[in-house]
Amino acid sequence: MVFWKRFFNPDSTSSPSLGPTGAEEFPTDDSDKGRIFFTTDRDIDLYELEELCDAVGWARRPIRKVKKAVECSFLVVTMWEVRGNRRRLVGFARATSDHAFNATVWDVVIHPSLQSKGLGKALMQYIIRKLRHYDISNITLFADPQVVDFYRRLGFVLDPEGIKGMFWYPD
Amino acid sequence: MVFWKRFFNPDSTSSPSLGPTGAEEFPTDDSDKGRIFFTTDRDIDLYELEELCDAVGWARRPIRKVKKAVECSFLVVTMWEVRGNRRRLVGFARATSDHAFNATVWDVVIHPSLQSKGLGKALMQYIIRKLRHYDISNITLFADPQVVDFYRRLGFVLDPEGIKGMFWYPD
Repeated sequence: MVFWKRFFNPDSTSSPSLGPTGAEEFPTDDSDKGRIFFTTDRDIDLYELEELCDAVGWARRPIRKVKKAVECSFLVVTMWEVRGNRRRLVGFARATSDHAFNATVWDVVIHPSLQSKGLGKALMQYIIRKLRHYDISNITLFADPQVVDFYRRLGFVLDPEGIKGMFWYPD
Repeated sequence: MVFWKRFFNPDSTSSPSLGPTGAEEFPTDDSDKGRIFFTTDRDIDLYELEELCDAVGWARRPIRKVKKAVECSFLVVTMWEVRGNRRRLVGFARATSDHAFNATVWDVVIHPSLQSKGLGKALMQYIIRKLRHYDISNITLFADPQVVDFYRRLGFVLDPEGIKGMFWYPD
């Protein structure tokens, strides 16, 4: 809880304009909205994450497995809307990796109330920057048809040199 | 070195017909060839792995990063040809994972001298079985065009429901 304690503590030495250590503010001029922060901190209420996934209509998954996946992902990025002393989880994404060459991004979600404001793009750019910091150069993902163009605009390439994404599911 | 010490030790309690603990023998009736074993043991000489990758014409990668990738992959599978008291690395594959939902298979390689004998299929079936043991149900990979049919025969599906594999590379 270090991250949020520091955030809400008026005696904090963190600069309010920069937000708490490790978090990054998304600049917004919409005064109706709170301030938006990204962080790689894994201090997540899994039920709040479930609510966020419910809001975009994803099928529910066992909390026990979500906990394991969050713990064992190489990178977890969350996006928070902060108003006064309240915070709300409004975005999430994570990546698996071999910590060296490859990463695969999973579970990219932005709350419907905040979509189409550039936050998805900012979240992905934040992830790419973090993965590049670890010198990972092959960043991959599996895109649903309706978001292929979104990822294309971020510089993701479809089937480069004929390389195809393939899936195996149990019977 | 526990695995190979046990394998080559004539006093070993391991059954020679089953091979050393944790390893699985690929049945072969080709008496010219040694015995073939799969294992998830990570006791790998990285220079031998480099030789194997050289043999199939892959671009060389920094050993330091290969070491990290082998250490940080969720699953590493090696295939060995054993003749008398000599062993030779003849196959390799690894998978990243969130240990819960998804795995992605990388770097599948079979030595050219042993290709077209069903070993690639057996290696992949071994990986799928190991991942299923951990209750991972979404097994993914990125297939070069010339191996798409190979993976299809193993039950991998191309672009299911229009889901597309996408890649981001640094400029």
